[in-house]
Amino acid sequence: MGRTSDAREKILAAAQPLIELRGYSALGVAEICKAAGVPKGSFYYFFESKEALALAVLDEHWEAQRGDWARVLRGGGAPLARLRRLFEETEAGLRAGQQSCGTVSGCMFGNLTLELSNQTEPIRERLQQIFEAQVEMVEKVVAEARDRGEATVGDAREAARSIVAQLEGQVLFAKLYNDTRHLDALWENCLSLLSARRTDTASVSS
Amino acid sequence: MGRTSDAREKILAAAQPLIELRGYSALGVAEICKAAGVPKGSFYYFFESKEALALAVLDEHWEAQRGDWARVLRGGGAPLARLRRLFEETEAGLRAGQQSCGTVSGCMFGNLTLELSNQTEPIRERLQQIFEAQVEMVEKVVAEARDRGEATVGDAREAARSIVAQLEGQVLFAKLYNDTRHLDALWENCLSLLSARRTDTASVSS
Repeated sequence: MGRTSDAREKILAAAQPLIELRGYSALGVAEICKAAGVPKGSFYYFFESKEALALAVLDEHWEAQRGDWARVLRGGGAPLARLRRLFEETEAGLRAGQQSCGTVSGCMFGNLTLELSNQTEPIRERLQQIFEAQVEMVEKVVAEARDRGEATVGDAREAARSIVAQLEGQVLFAKLYNDTRHLDALWENCLSLLSARRTDTASVSS
Repeated sequence: MGRTSDAREKILAAAQPLIELRGYSALGVAEICKAAGVPKGSFYYFFESKEALALAVLDEHWEAQRGDWARVLRGGGAPLARLRRLFEETEAGLRAGQQSCGTVSGCMFGNLTLELSNQTEPIRERLQQIFEAQVEMVEKVVAEARDRGEATVGDAREAARSIVAQLEGQVLFAKLYNDTRHLDALWENCLSLLSARRTDTASVSS
């Protein structure tokens, strides 16, 4: 019964919001199976362990988010305007989550990094790959802005890493205060980190 | 036996590194008592719950860290030089922890914010108070730098919050990559966030 073809998808679909909201250690396999409506035997048919499930959840979540980031960051408009849109969409996404579950759950990748990355190497490696991919996507936009004379940075990759760090830090505050407006600071801070002139960026972001 | 006068201190001393390293949900009261060398009955004599212990650990950890921050941020030298020293001491502290336990465990306040702040109101409130106190301490230094013409910021509190956000973001990367050198970027990023001129700050930080 449980090993029907959609049991794996049911488990993943149930685990994703649970991990996002409550983290990894607080969750048990039995609770995930109950939420998914599948027997526990099914779980171990599809996943070797809770860690294997977490890796699959990370992969699936990043696949969706990478698509969103690519659409925004490789879309039309001036490079810095696209970064601004990324911040706005991130804030809108957190707000939608807050409206549906009553609380800002933050960034699943940041959450699991601080909860787990020093404890399990497979999860650490996967999170490193995800953050490297994020930094690389931002780096391309930063380099493009620099080449257009709209940003002044020495090392575009380091600048991109600092922008992602600022994003994670402000998402941490948004979660702490259950208030997504902490992300409002991102755009101005990004301009500062890129030594971008406000007048230039005002025109490119319009 | 267990309810001797130092059992509470033993529990706190054992819980602090365990929570810092592995978080809250992954730990059980039995494990904490075993590490502390006290019977479980003792635990509930001193602490109503694991949450009550976590609050006490947060208080004790912040009391020590607040002392360090005050010594550095209210110490001698130009204001921005003191901020730089804070970053350097934070990095040195993370490095010392890494050398003793093999892994960068990050910032306990950041860790518990992302693991727990959306799940328990008492811990959320305590973490808010701690981060507000951090932001306030940085704000005073930023305002002092601004008054000396060494930083250009509109809202010193918002600038301070962005500096603390940047700190938390880079500590997240330090934990993810088990490499404290991610904190090296803090000083340059801080100057950018404060629109501080490098030439000014080079002289004040010497």
